[in-house]
Amino acid sequence: MTVETKKISFSTQGEVQIIDITDRVEKAVSESQTTSGIVTIFVPGATGAVTTIEYEPGLLKDFPKILERISPKNMGYEHELRWHDGNGHSHCRASLLGPSLTVPYTQKKLLLGTWQQIVFIELDVRPRNRNIILQIIGE
Amino acid sequence: MTVETKKISFSTQGEVQIIDITDRVEKAVSESQTTSGIVTIFVPGATGAVTTIEYEPGLLKDFPKILERISPKNMGYEHELRWHDGNGHSHCRASLLGPSLTVPYTQKKLLLGTWQQIVFIELDVRPRNRNIILQIIGE
Amino acid sequence: MTVETKKISFSTQGEVQIIDITDRVEKAVSESQTTSGIVTIFVPGATGAVTTIEYEPGLLKDFPKILERISPKNMGYEHELRWHDGNGHSHCRASLLGPSLTVPYTQKKLLLGTWQQIVFIELDVRPRNRNIILQIIGE
Repeated sequence: MTVETKKISFSTQGEVQIIDITDRVEKAVSESQTTSGIVTIFVPGATGAVTTIEYEPGLLKDFPKILERISPKNMGYEHELRWHDGNGHSHCRASLLGPSLTVPYTQKKLLLGTWQQIVFIELDVRPRNRNIILQIIGE
Repeated sequence: MTVETKKISFSTQGEVQIIDITDRVEKAVSESQTTSGIVTIFVPGATGAVTTIEYEPGLLKDFPKILERISPKNMGYEHELRWHDGNGHSHCRASLLGPSLTVPYTQKKLLLGTWQQIVFIELDVRPRNRNIILQIIGE
Repeated sequence: MTVETKKISFSTQGEVQIIDITDRVEKAVSESQTTSGIVTIFVPGATGAVTTIEYEPGLLKDFPKILERISPKNMGYEHELRWHDGNGHSHCRASLLGPSLTVPYTQKKLLLGTWQQIVFIELDVRPRNRNIILQIIGE
């Protein structure tokens, strides 16, 4: 059993951008010293999230609409009083979706469904440089 | 420390069916070679989710109502344009709830609360055969 | 690789109290026998949740408002028929947010963002004594 820490880095365009990171997670796992275990994909930040989705153009429009239903951009947020950067909704959405996803793998392959991709969701209002942590634990 | 991969298989009846899988996860953990660690319960698919709930008849009606509030079935989804299978809301709900849950165990027992069960939630509109992954890491 | 099980205990004041547990998780990790790995923070109960948030006074008001949008306190819940304790919404919110969070660490430090704290969210309507499990797996 070993622990390996890897990082995925990329730039985003602001809200709501859904970025498919499946290939990069798959590559990190396949290059690890282990063949089976779990990879924890973690967002070190309070305005991004990670989940899975069928990555196709329709859902890339639908899911942001659902986020707008849940936590509307222009609802008026107290968070605004601290930073004045108009991203109270970004924070609320991120806390709801969560910063962490754990995916199992065997034979160096992620055990995902055929139509299931791992995505980072940029919820912040402005472009950001993001570093996502991959913590791989396996044997 | 070892990794063990197990699978739970069952058929579902379509949305929104909430299935208590606690006993099967508990059994898998108790039969493993390890006594303490974590089990990651993972749904390989984009229209199902896993979480915990107090498994009693009232909440089995309440929670689907909340999902309908968040992501209504008949809102009109762009996803429809690709597949025409009427399950855009299923995808959005699944991405929100998430496909992965990690539960600790010691002395071969899951560390759940008394009124807390592990559930798979079928969000797809039609009956499905489901295979849920249990990745057990412990010593 | 080892597994260590630790516990955080505290009293809460009822809904919706958001409690910063970052320092206590950090301390548990720093005192463990390991230097890198993952810590699974788990709520053994069906009316509490764990996530991350920027812990500042504005968001501590905003996030409960979002929870009220999603699962209103006075919507009328079937759960009420069983227990008559007025916490149907607490259960629905907890199932949505989830009881489990996995955070990576290296060099005995959690890999959190600068403005990101780990929080327990008390969703139950009354004060509770809470025991949160920390399952630390690392080397």
